[in-house]
Amino acid sequence: MIFYDCSTAPNPRRARMFIAEKGLNIETHEISIAEGAQLSAEFRAVNPRATIPVLVTDDGAVLTENLGIAAYLEARFPEPPLMGRTADEKGLVLMWNAIAEQQGGAPIAEALRNSHPAFKDRAIPGTVNHAQIPKLAQRGRERVASFFELLEARLNQSVYVAGDVFTLADISTFVFVDFARVIKMRIPEGNTRTQVWFEIVKARPSAQL
Amino acid sequence: MIFYDCSTAPNPRRARMFIAEKGLNIETHEISIAEGAQLSAEFRAVNPRATIPVLVTDDGAVLTENLGIAAYLEARFPEPPLMGRTADEKGLVLMWNAIAEQQGGAPIAEALRNSHPAFKDRAIPGTVNHAQIPKLAQRGRERVASFFELLEARLNQSVYVAGDVFTLADISTFVFVDFARVIKMRIPEGNTRTQVWFEIVKARPSAQL
Repeated sequence: MIFYDCSTAPNPRRARMFIAEKGLNIETHEISIAEGAQLSAEFRAVNPRATIPVLVTDDGAVLTENLGIAAYLEARFPEPPLMGRTADEKGLVLMWNAIAEQQGGAPIAEALRNSHPAFKDRAIPGTVNHAQIPKLAQRGRERVASFFELLEARLNQSVYVAGDVFTLADISTFVFVDFARVIKMRIPEGNTRTQVWFEIVKARPSAQL
Repeated sequence: MIFYDCSTAPNPRRARMFIAEKGLNIETHEISIAEGAQLSAEFRAVNPRATIPVLVTDDGAVLTENLGIAAYLEARFPEPPLMGRTADEKGLVLMWNAIAEQQGGAPIAEALRNSHPAFKDRAIPGTVNHAQIPKLAQRGRERVASFFELLEARLNQSVYVAGDVFTLADISTFVFVDFARVIKMRIPEGNTRTQVWFEIVKARPSAQL
């Protein structure tokens, strides 16, 4: 297997944490988004869509998208399970992972990429340039605030995001919550359940990478 | 199990097709988005986030999000497999499902919800109102055009979206491509691979529901 990573970006970090939680050691190539290396001819020969992370499997499948990489690794290396043990758990893990992506990760990315000068004309990742939309940056911030409240309510019901054990849903949520610092948003002071959960996940060895 | 459906919306249709492909007959309640029934106190007692589809399992888990519902049903009713048989296939199915959601479904929704008078102040589904952003509607249309090209290129390599058999990735992609009619976008005339694939999927009994 070969893993294409980028140490500064949130989506590769999710895959990196998942790999570490599985206890795997995979040959890793760093693709620097800061240097635009994802748009190089060399990397686009691997992933024409120019996104990171990518995992190339031993059978030669080229997996982009965190869920693609996670589903492959979970099937091939089932222990420890990170995507649920029972049918109910499997459903809850992908449900909360989707909520974290759509209500957390997406609005953080919208807020960042539609406001920061470094992303001028790069409001969407990939090969096609799109101009920034300032109103979308503002809406993103409002939605991140709503996500923090949704997460606090959930963690009042549940120790981890998808239930009573650590899963993929915690990895995604943790990486997004941590990454919200780039738009200067943090866990609100009164959200004590989220703060406790965040410190527990942050202490895991996989979160140090 | 109880399935909460809405016959006019694309995301419930994805779950409805998945259930039909599994050959299941599940007690179904129609929630009319046209009448705002998703925001009623009765439905919010089921799903406080006010989104459809929802599947309540026999053990009482309340699964929102298509991927949550699909992962549960795939684990509990493995035949026929709709999320891959081998590790590589499982990876490819969730990879292409994510691409369809993010590059197809999301921009179609952005184009519709940020332009149509019926979605005034309802640019994002759920309980919080958000004003329309006309520039986002325009960007959505541009991205849908790119998605049609991406899909044609993929279907030049592969009979179905994720490989050589029909899967969840075909369900999601088919429903989004069909729903693009609401923003008056159709498969471009020259995209013959996509047209052939679309007719094959459209002929399945699950697509008639």
